[in-house]
This record gives sequence, C-alpha cells and structure tokens, in this order.
Amino acid sequence: MPDTMKAVRFHGKEDLRFEDIPNPSLPPTHIRLTPAYNGICGTDLHEYSGGPNLCPTTPHPITRETVPLTFGHEFSGIVTEVGPAVPSDANIKPGDRVCVQPIIYDGTCGACKEGYINCCYSNGFVGLSGWGGGLAESCFVPASCVVKLPDNVSLRAGALIEPLAVGWHAVNMSEFEKLDVKNVGVLVTGGGPIGLAVIQALKARGAGKVIVSEISGKRKEFAKDFGADYVLDPTKDDVVARCKELCEGQGVHVAFDCAGVKPGLDAAILATRARGLIVNIAVWEKPVLINVNDLVFKERKYMGIATYQAGDFQAVLSAISEGRMKPEGMITKEISLDKVLKEGFESLLQDKGNLVKVMVQVRPPKDES
Amino acid sequence: MPDTMKAVRFHGKEDLRFEDIPNPSLPPTHIRLTPAYNGICGTDLHEYSGGPNLCPTTPHPITRETVPLTFGHEFSGIVTEVGPAVPSDANIKPGDRVCVQPIIYDGTCGACKEGYINCCYSNGFVGLSGWGGGLAESCFVPASCVVKLPDNVSLRAGALIEPLAVGWHAVNMSEFEKLDVKNVGVLVTGGGPIGLAVIQALKARGAGKVIVSEISGKRKEFAKDFGADYVLDPTKDDVVARCKELCEGQGVHVAFDCAGVKPGLDAAILATRARGLIVNIAVWEKPVLINVNDLVFKERKYMGIATYQAGDFQAVLSAISEGRMKPEGMITKEISLDKVLKEGFESLLQDKGNLVKVMVQVRPPKDES
Repeated sequence: MPDTMKAVRFHGKEDLRFEDIPNPSLPPTHIRLTPAYNGICGTDLHEYSGGPNLCPTTPHPITRETVPLTFGHEFSGIVTEVGPAVPSDANIKPGDRVCVQPIIYDGTCGACKEGYINCCYSNGFVGLSGWGGGLAESCFVPASCVVKLPDNVSLRAGALIEPLAVGWHAVNMSEFEKLDVKNVGVLVTGGGPIGLAVIQALKARGAGKVIVSEISGKRKEFAKDFGADYVLDPTKDDVVARCKELCEGQGVHVAFDCAGVKPGLDAAILATRARGLIVNIAVWEKPVLINVNDLVFKERKYMGIATYQAGDFQAVLSAISEGRMKPEGMITKEISLDKVLKEGFESLLQDKGNLVKVMVQVRPPKDES
Repeated sequence: MPDTMKAVRFHGKEDLRFEDIPNPSLPPTHIRLTPAYNGICGTDLHEYSGGPNLCPTTPHPITRETVPLTFGHEFSGIVTEVGPAVPSDANIKPGDRVCVQPIIYDGTCGACKEGYINCCYSNGFVGLSGWGGGLAESCFVPASCVVKLPDNVSLRAGALIEPLAVGWHAVNMSEFEKLDVKNVGVLVTGGGPIGLAVIQALKARGAGKVIVSEISGKRKEFAKDFGADYVLDPTKDDVVARCKELCEGQGVHVAFDCAGVKPGLDAAILATRARGLIVNIAVWEKPVLINVNDLVFKERKYMGIATYQAGDFQAVLSAISEGRMKPEGMITKEISLDKVLKEGFESLLQDKGNLVKVMVQVRPPKDES
C-alpha cells in the first residue's frame, strides 16, 4: 500500500482541496475499503458554502478529529482489509462489494440504548466527522457501517443507498403503510435527491396518489419519471387547493417536506387534512415562523426525521434487488475524483435545478465502471 | 316563561354587557336548560380583550348568528324542556342534571365523517358562535351537546368538565397510556386551568413523574395540590437541564404545552428526549419561530390538539364519580351573573396568576348552591 493517497478534503468555508494525504493505518475494529462511487450530497454543499456546521471544529467526541476532513458519505466500494478485532460474525472479507451506512454513534447514550442510533447524543457521520470518507482512494469504517451489496445491485446503485435510505426511513416513520396506500394522497415538497428518494420509497410500497410540488422544470420531469402521479408547480398552481381537490376536498393524509423553505412548509401544513401528518426531512438553515394554530385546529402532527436506522439500508437493497426500485436514473452526471470541486460542488451550486445526483467515480473496478 | 331574560353578551372588543334579551323559542331539535354554574375560560378572555377572533362577525355557517352573542361554554344546568324532534333515545327529560359539551359541528364535512367533530371545517361552540350560552338565565343546545351528570357529581363540578375534557383528550391523543406511566417523565408548561386539567388527567391515569413549569406562586401551589411531582419555576430553574436530570439524563417522554409562549415551547422541545412528543394545547395569538432542526435531529414530534371528542366528557365524569379526580379545588372564586364583567373578566385579566377558575353561579338550584 502506498504511503499517500489522493483525497478531497474540506478545510473550511469554500475551501475544498484535492490533495495527497497519508494513507492511514487501519484501527483493529475497522474495515478498509476502496471507494468505487460516491455521490455528492446537499449536506456536503451546505458545509462547503456555509460551514463548518456539522463538521467538527473541536475534536468530535467519537472520532476525536476536526477539520480538515475527507468528504464523502454516500458511497460504495470493495473491501480490501478487515481489522483483526472485527468479529467474525460480521461476515465481511476482502473483495466483498459493499456500501456504507455512515452513522457514527457511541452506543452508550440514552438514545442509542433505546435503539435510535440516528439520534445519538454524540453522533457523527463517516465523511463529515472524521474516519475518512468516500472521496478518497482508500478509507476505513467501523464494521457496523458496512453493508454487503446483493450480486445484482451495482456499485453505482450502491452509492445511492444512503439518500434512498433517508426517504425509506421517513416513509417508515410516517406509518404510511398503515393507510390505504393505493388511495390516500401524499404530498412531497421538493423534487431534489431526497424528494425523489421519498417518491421511490412511496411507490415501492404501493402508493397510488403521490403529489409532488417542485419549481424546476428538470426536477419536475424526474419526479414524473420516478412515479409521481401529479406534479404541481407552486409558482403556478395553488398547491393547497389542488391537494384538496385531489383528495376528497380534505387534503393529503401525509406531507413530506423535502424542501425546507417557509412557503413549502406553509403549503404542506395547510394541504394536510384533519389529523394528518407533516414529516420534515429537510435540514433548516434557520428557525422558521410557524402558525401553530394551523396544527391545533385540525389536530395535525409535525414530525422531524433524521437519516435512517438499522434495517433501512437492507430494505432499500432488497427493493432494488427485487426490481421494486430502479434508482440509477437519479444520476445526472458522473465525474472523476480530481474534478469534484469544479464539476461537482460548483456545478451543483450554480445549476441545482437541472442536476439531481452528481456521482464521483472514485476507483470503480473495471467491470463496473 | 318570561318574555325576557338576563344574559352576558359579547358585543366586540372590551364590550361585554349584562343585559335583557328576548327569551328565545326552542328549536324542535334542541334542549332547553337553566344554567346552574358557568366557568370563565381563557378563550372568553381572549375574545374580550383582543377579539372577536372565534366569535363570528359574519353569519356562522351553522348557527347563522353574529356578535353580539351570549357568552359561556363551560357550564352545567337543569333541563327544562326537550324539543319535540329530539329522538327519544337521547334519554333526556326535564329535571335532569346535565353538563354541556359545546361543540357545534355540521356532521357532513370530511373531518366529521372521519369522526373528528372537533376538527369540523365549519365548527363552532355554544357560547362563542351562537345558540346562546351558559351566562344567561336560560339557553338551548342541540341534543348532541347534553351529557347527564352522575348523581354523585355536583353541578359545580359539572361546569368544570369542559376544561377537564380538554386535558383528558390531550392525554389520550398523546398515547401516554402506552408508556410505562409510573416511571416516564412528563412535562406540563403552564399551571392555569388547562395545565391543571392535564395534571389531573395524567394523575388519574397513574402518572408517576409529572413535572410542571410555572411562574406564578399561586399556580405553583395548585399544581402541587393537584398532584404534580415536581414544580419548576422557569425564572429560577433551568427547565431543560432539570428535566434531563429527573429523566435518566435524556428528558421527558411527553411535554404538554399549556402556556403558548415561545420560551415555554423552546424549553418543552429541548426537554423532550429523542423520539419524544410535544403536545400543543395552547391557542397562539401569532405565529412563533421554531427551530425545526430541534425536531429533526432527535426525531421529535409536535402535535396540535383541539378541545375534545366523543367520549371525553363521559370519561372525565367517570373519573370524578369514581373519585380518581377531585377538581372542585380549581375554583378560586365564585360570583353572581351580574358581576361577570368586573369580578370575572376584569379580575382575571388583572390577576391571572392568582386565580384559576372563576365560577359564575348563574341559577344553581337551592340544594346545590
């Protein structure tokens, strides 16, 4: 193994560097892999343009690292080395094709003890909080983060599991499947990667009336392609009125807010029927003014959702393996590792509406490149 | 029956009159009663000091009335006349001791059809939207509004069922009883009548760790009297830190916001553990800034609750009849109908912190006065 490797590292606001760093030695409890594909995420963009927010500037309680840090938390790869302290029942060996579930958690806090590792009081993410990331020629992750890909799921699709799992988890948490899924209306605000992940998770579970609200022409097309039954444009359509029309005069049962902007949230609340549920997946840049009485008088519920939990990656992989989800069309552009700043981050920031997922070919094996 | 009667009527902002009005004739589907006791509610105060908000200024879709309107929606009384079109299975006859569940609903909208009459798209309240109210010598209500009192429940307590039902319903909706009620922590912000109703509903269901946050000295005492296990003062205690200390370092499972002020809501959210629930019962005067990320990263839920629904009045009456609730101590002052403005509304507005429920003796029968 060479002493150094190439990595895309975040040094601070608007400071992302493609550089040589030492090839770290493997902690005995971790697994080393060669990243194959890595998607660029909205969170990465937020850190780059306005951070560090999630990335630690004082030592992270678990990784003990601070910026500069290697980026990349949506990735797949090939296992190259298994630490000697990884338990054998992890059942991982060199050569395995895997994707990474990047949650770092302490396992000892109250949230972890109750099984909510995604709400861990010390939580972090591979590719945001230390321990390397997918945008490097090599990286290591705890054994708990490694999920094997079924043979018929490509490494390319493997790098999409992370955002898809966010949508899958949100649909789980909404208890949508307890409803009459074929007939009840669902609103999704925002047709970016997370909105598309929610649409796919809904359709994979039989949703019959998925209404999407999105401004960008390209994203509207994608929403349709991934199965949205109705696509509304909030600059032209009265989203609340249309949701009522489409849903027995009452509005949708569940709204998923994947936009995180006030007009979208206001519409999502009012488009939801009495006793309906609004699920927030978006991360907000600042507090937002909410008319609480709109929740009160119709006994609506507003729920926050964070990433995913145990089982979500496996559920998404099964859905893809069985043909219920076909996510590769989310990839609108592929670039190489040395082009991440210009062709990835800067393109996305300038042309977000026309791009969905920019995928970085890190080191894909020849037969899957 | 005399041609006129005394009534307390709301004409508009800061305009409440004790006046003679015609004694209305009874619609055939309604029941006439003589109010015995009527409590003054925070909603009445809001209408008086800042309204009309809920009171209609254009004809209410169901009652067809507008201000001026007779006030009073928390009341008990004696049935004096049953309209000829009231179905016999209503099982109500002159002389019955009853309380009034004041929701007016159309029964035909989507919310009503799904059983949520409290979320009716045309809803109103006896005593706020027309059809008279409890602050009059006589009034009539639809048969659906009349609930008989058990023999061992006083008419005085009967006038407390309405606010108690709000608390009861909120506790139902929180699904608190699915938790380990003896051991999990619950926060109640605000120790006014609704806060006290929630405390009583929780204790009647076996809650073992009820934490109340309240500023006023008198209301703190009441909270304790009605069973609060811990009473915090947000001007002196760090409510979030104390809730964590009292609840395994994590915070409460459920918070009931009965205060409706931003610092209280902020504390309620942060005092709630991962996957916890914040129940809003308060009606807000204006939108409030919420840090949605506080819901997101811990997957908290924020739920709006409106009044009560079928069964809640009966459940509260059973709890009182069986001795699990003893609410009469909520009454801090009793006044006569002619004193409602000075001794009721104005006193409450000036000295809210020292009063809980001001009860109006409208026309109690001699043996219950």
